[in-house]
Amino acid sequence: MFYHDKRLQYTVRVDTPNPVFAKMLQQAIGGVEGEIRVMLQYLFQAWGARGPVKYRDMLLETGTEEIGHVEMLATAVAMNLEGAPASFQEEAAMNPMVKAALSGMDPRHYLSAGMAAMASDSNGVPFDGSHVYASGNLAADMFANVTAEATGRALATRLYHMTDDPGMKDMLSFLIARDTMHQQQWLAVLEELKEQGGYLPIPNSFPQEQENQQFNYVFLSTNIDPQAPIPAGRWSKGRSIDGQGRIQRRAFETTGPGA
Amino acid sequence: MFYHDKRLQYTVRVDTPNPVFAKMLQQAIGGVEGEIRVMLQYLFQAWGARGPVKYRDMLLETGTEEIGHVEMLATAVAMNLEGAPASFQEEAAMNPMVKAALSGMDPRHYLSAGMAAMASDSNGVPFDGSHVYASGNLAADMFANVTAEATGRALATRLYHMTDDPGMKDMLSFLIARDTMHQQQWLAVLEELKEQGGYLPIPNSFPQEQENQQFNYVFLSTNIDPQAPIPAGRWSKGRSIDGQGRIQRRAFETTGPGA
Amino acid sequence: MFYHDKRLQYTVRVDTPNPVFAKMLQQAIGGVEGEIRVMLQYLFQAWGARGPVKYRDMLLETGTEEIGHVEMLATAVAMNLEGAPASFQEEAAMNPMVKAALSGMDPRHYLSAGMAAMASDSNGVPFDGSHVYASGNLAADMFANVTAEATGRALATRLYHMTDDPGMKDMLSFLIARDTMHQQQWLAVLEELKEQGGYLPIPNSFPQEQENQQFNYVFLSTNIDPQAPIPAGRWSKGRSIDGQGRIQRRAFETTGPGA
Amino acid sequence: MFYHDKRLQYTVRVDTPNPVFAKMLQQAIGGVEGEIRVMLQYLFQAWGARGPVKYRDMLLETGTEEIGHVEMLATAVAMNLEGAPASFQEEAAMNPMVKAALSGMDPRHYLSAGMAAMASDSNGVPFDGSHVYASGNLAADMFANVTAEATGRALATRLYHMTDDPGMKDMLSFLIARDTMHQQQWLAVLEELKEQGGYLPIPNSFPQEQENQQFNYVFLSTNIDPQAPIPAGRWSKGRSIDGQGRIQRRAFETTGPGA
Amino acid sequence: MFYHDKRLQYTVRVDTPNPVFAKMLQQAIGGVEGEIRVMLQYLFQAWGARGPVKYRDMLLETGTEEIGHVEMLATAVAMNLEGAPASFQEEAAMNPMVKAALSGMDPRHYLSAGMAAMASDSNGVPFDGSHVYASGNLAADMFANVTAEATGRALATRLYHMTDDPGMKDMLSFLIARDTMHQQQWLAVLEELKEQGGYLPIPNSFPQEQENQQFNYVFLSTNIDPQAPIPAGRWSKGRSIDGQGRIQRRAFETTGPGA
Amino acid sequence: MFYHDKRLQYTVRVDTPNPVFAKMLQQAIGGVEGEIRVMLQYLFQAWGARGPVKYRDMLLETGTEEIGHVEMLATAVAMNLEGAPASFQEEAAMNPMVKAALSGMDPRHYLSAGMAAMASDSNGVPFDGSHVYASGNLAADMFANVTAEATGRALATRLYHMTDDPGMKDMLSFLIARDTMHQQQWLAVLEELKEQGGYLPIPNSFPQEQENQQFNYVFLSTNIDPQAPIPAGRWSKGRSIDGQGRIQRRAFETTGPGA
Repeated sequence: MFYHDKRLQYTVRVDTPNPVFAKMLQQAIGGVEGEIRVMLQYLFQAWGARGPVKYRDMLLETGTEEIGHVEMLATAVAMNLEGAPASFQEEAAMNPMVKAALSGMDPRHYLSAGMAAMASDSNGVPFDGSHVYASGNLAADMFANVTAEATGRALATRLYHMTDDPGMKDMLSFLIARDTMHQQQWLAVLEELKEQGGYLPIPNSFPQEQENQQFNYVFLSTNIDPQAPIPAGRWSKGRSIDGQGRIQRRAFETTGPGA
Repeated sequence: MFYHDKRLQYTVRVDTPNPVFAKMLQQAIGGVEGEIRVMLQYLFQAWGARGPVKYRDMLLETGTEEIGHVEMLATAVAMNLEGAPASFQEEAAMNPMVKAALSGMDPRHYLSAGMAAMASDSNGVPFDGSHVYASGNLAADMFANVTAEATGRALATRLYHMTDDPGMKDMLSFLIARDTMHQQQWLAVLEELKEQGGYLPIPNSFPQEQENQQFNYVFLSTNIDPQAPIPAGRWSKGRSIDGQGRIQRRAFETTGPGA
Repeated sequence: MFYHDKRLQYTVRVDTPNPVFAKMLQQAIGGVEGEIRVMLQYLFQAWGARGPVKYRDMLLETGTEEIGHVEMLATAVAMNLEGAPASFQEEAAMNPMVKAALSGMDPRHYLSAGMAAMASDSNGVPFDGSHVYASGNLAADMFANVTAEATGRALATRLYHMTDDPGMKDMLSFLIARDTMHQQQWLAVLEELKEQGGYLPIPNSFPQEQENQQFNYVFLSTNIDPQAPIPAGRWSKGRSIDGQGRIQRRAFETTGPGA
Repeated sequence: MFYHDKRLQYTVRVDTPNPVFAKMLQQAIGGVEGEIRVMLQYLFQAWGARGPVKYRDMLLETGTEEIGHVEMLATAVAMNLEGAPASFQEEAAMNPMVKAALSGMDPRHYLSAGMAAMASDSNGVPFDGSHVYASGNLAADMFANVTAEATGRALATRLYHMTDDPGMKDMLSFLIARDTMHQQQWLAVLEELKEQGGYLPIPNSFPQEQENQQFNYVFLSTNIDPQAPIPAGRWSKGRSIDGQGRIQRRAFETTGPGA
Repeated sequence: MFYHDKRLQYTVRVDTPNPVFAKMLQQAIGGVEGEIRVMLQYLFQAWGARGPVKYRDMLLETGTEEIGHVEMLATAVAMNLEGAPASFQEEAAMNPMVKAALSGMDPRHYLSAGMAAMASDSNGVPFDGSHVYASGNLAADMFANVTAEATGRALATRLYHMTDDPGMKDMLSFLIARDTMHQQQWLAVLEELKEQGGYLPIPNSFPQEQENQQFNYVFLSTNIDPQAPIPAGRWSKGRSIDGQGRIQRRAFETTGPGA
Repeated sequence: MFYHDKRLQYTVRVDTPNPVFAKMLQQAIGGVEGEIRVMLQYLFQAWGARGPVKYRDMLLETGTEEIGHVEMLATAVAMNLEGAPASFQEEAAMNPMVKAALSGMDPRHYLSAGMAAMASDSNGVPFDGSHVYASGNLAADMFANVTAEATGRALATRLYHMTDDPGMKDMLSFLIARDTMHQQQWLAVLEELKEQGGYLPIPNSFPQEQENQQFNYVFLSTNIDPQAPIPAGRWSKGRSIDGQGRIQRRAFETTGPGA
């Protein structure tokens, strides 16, 4: 069950409202990399968890925190739109300045929401629940979570570069810090799983002898020129990362099945 | 900011797991009439509220409660899927019974979620954030909220009719009760607004003398036969509901503008 | 069956074409609050109606009218884009003025539609049929319809504030008037239902004694501080709006089920 | 402007209601090949038409007819669901027979719509406005329209094969006939355009000498084996269909630009 | 199976990077008229083909070519965004110039993609797989393909008019040429089918005597005035295009079924 | 640029066609965990790559391979539908057996595709381009890729458990093997990045001293009971995974900002 208090998790302050920045912040609310997604993702992972209860418990803790991040960002959007509605009401028509302001802002912030946040991304595309990844496999979910926090932190740092509003920079510096920690958390689970015997390949419940043994540790080249060198890296030689095989390389022509 | 405890708001118990019913419950999670929608709708309305703080506070109270309803339903889905995964693991192939079970369940409950709830509706269509209505107009939002609770309660009673599992019936009887109360809440706000001078037509901030005076209280018929009787009801005669005008009726032919 | 004539329901005139305003008008065509939605919503409600035939008949009348509103708006979009295509054809390259014009207009008005309206909203998000609400419950549908006309009228008044084109203001003043009337119509149905014995809670076909009696008229607080005052209003005391119960208030700690 | 009468364009009769067939019919309502799509497509093409008025007029005629087809199909869906709701209401629980019936029907026909049609396809995916093609180029639009009527007629004939209900077969035989005629109409426009000097390549307003002359009439093979024979047909030799060039064939290796 | 080399199919060169044009190019990548769509459409048609193998083979040839077109456009987007990221990194804040640049570009090019192409259209709406038409009927698919290449070529010529960058004009002149050829290809298949006995009405596998004989070659008017002249053209008189019937005209009043 | 040959990458054989399994396979084609997604994801990452060329080259190699996986699966879907269409054509009506077959299959496999694969998931929801993750940050993208291959391999193993068709098991055993290798590849890139100095926190281009130093290595509890024990694990004590900090734990009450 869930509770709230009326305080935000961290102060949200906007020194100079900027409706264009309000639009940018929407990506962090309803975008693929945004907070509605991680909120629902961690909660659904918790609610569907069937393994050790401590992972479920931790997911609940952090999923709940993320609701508060949506709240902070929605508050920030409303603050950045502050003042803008006034101009519409004061003047019955769209004068050049208003027009200029509008050209960069999300029109639906005014038309649909009356100057408030929406459950959409920075292009006005509605939040899409198919991005809530909860696969029933803990390791897969942890990779999904690191991805979410990695793209989320990349987004937050890009937003940080786009504003010079001290209030917004302060809020983002908090959210970036939380993304740092959350990356640590999900990586820590993977570390634990590794210590308990490993999790690769994911899912490791499938008996690996049933997978095709000729293709499971082979880097296949699809280069049209079978003589072309294969891009060399850690993935093209040596023991595989999971320690189960040795990586080979093969050009396309040797992989073709009978016509 | 948000908090949780590990208890559910109300007990969730499934006496006989039923994967087909798990699919039906998804409509109440990720469907248009579902709980993710009202959770986000009430919270976004709260976060965007610019009027008297008591409405914002109330929206926060109930929006937070709804997170716990998503949790109850997601738990119920997982419980209804219990046992089903076992059959897949025990037998390497899809025997006729498994096949039968699958024909009615959501395949993604197994394929994508490993037997857990998803952020989708009963047809597997992902939750869609465009249903989060928050217009910036309190009366409009209250009507949207009554709609959500009315269709939500209709859905819950239909689910109630589809199951004879005592645990599920008990849980639904709780959710139906909460929908009853939430309908009352939003209607109560409308009652308050009426006492404070009314809210119609919505939005009542627009000076009504600027709307076309010939068409604002006229029931227009589009029946091809101008002699056909207009469907008679409270909408076709007498004072208008908002008390601002008298309703007239007119057939199409008199409304046509110059060609 | 449906018929048309070649005249519009009301004159559409654009004095100064403005491609940015064309983009704004799209919200009233293909947006959540727009006319494609109400057109389909009223028609699907009519086609699915199983109760007294007069409601079905009235829904058909007004659903048909709404097709003509889509037509007016699509015409207005095309008129606002008039002239803009010329600039592209006259000059082979994107000169600064064209660039400026484009920065605020919907690029797909030119790229995809050749300067005409599309079935999308003001951000270019396609119309989405899941917003066509027709629940099979008359009262629920009437609330959905008031919501649609309330957000629709809010949108139309906001568009009115954004333009000083006399033609556009005239057209919007007609559409705003129709939204006023349509709000009256759906409220009038609710009034009739009330006179016939009431419709609450929706759906009132479900025997209310089967809903949980401890929670159906209780305002629950989810405030983390059980001593915090509950937001006070018409929803927190007195007889419930439906007259079936007395509203109580309760803080979260008393609602928790056994762990 | 639009009008209606209360009769359907053609009789709709269901001899034996079948909720599974109701689900199938949804594809013809809200699917990619369905009637909401053609209704909106022809109307938007009409409303955006800038050329000779007779094309606009014809599009309006047929777009209006299509609204009546949606109506027929929505009526047919409701009739096929007739009786099904009764079973839910009579018995408080989901007995095996009801369960069986449900396994093939769209759950939302009951859960969301109370046994009526929805604006979705046969998988419950909502109608999507991006399929409303109106490009501003008459010839392109006519090809889009033939496509819509060709896939629409294919769908209708497949539905015809799936039912042995005489009423449904009669209704489909009418809709199939209309699709035949509508294919003729759009092809007739193309014939007219051909007689007026041709329309290829579409759009023929672009000066063809500005397109790359080395690649505009060349069939390029992407077969990995440059010696492999190119699939031979009317597309690989002789005068091009537009009469503007001669088709050549070339294997991939000769098309590669400098590395 | 598929192969690649590291060269593009045709040189992509951007003389003056322009992030607004990058946004416009997205329509040709992920839009309804774009290259991801035709790539998948031709490949899925090939993979599902059940008729003469030469059509399957040809579809594979061209579907594969289209992957290379997505590649060219994605490369062009990245090149047009070149330099823009630098401005963000050099200056910690959004100075007026940056703000101006941003107002016209897709914010997600920076926020989500770090200055690279995305699988979306010019409004940031994600690519939608429902536009991949493959009906199982060769003639219907060929019309769908001509439509795709017609709207695709219209889009490419419109993009051509919007830029004066010589590199971009050169690339588009190549893509326009390929669209010309691809229109020819699909029309050539239709020509072949016509020579083999015709394909109309589509699908011609359905016995035409089972369609309603009173409505299959009749142009129906839905004009409210039964005396109004029917728009005259090739579609309203003479032999039908398929040669199977004579086209008649009829006003609405004669088509109405019994009430 | 891309090339093809007419052979599949690996033999696809179906011993006993099964239209229900065809539906399940769709998840691996157009689902979130499917092959269209990884194909586009790796290719877009390659086309947008700005760092060392070897990563771009490798992404191209494997992105190209994935096109061939879509091809194998689409072929498998068509083969599993083989025979099913025949039943429709032989019998003009839907006899009980056909009805049974249909109840579990995707209706659009017949209605829309004429018994072939579609670009949709196992519920018929169209492929959605927003799942193509390409963030411009190599490490973030590698985590996204491991996620894709982890959920993809989980899906393939679940499909493997659902069939006892030897041909399908053989094909899946190949695809599972490739998923194993692809997991290794993306993990190998992360290993290389770690050896080159690390990549955490992602993105590590942001100066970490600008993030809030009080919250970047703190596990925050949102448990309503500040005395409740925090779920203990590798994430709650010791050096952080990135080696930049020491993890602390804190209950909610200490994190609250001033009211």
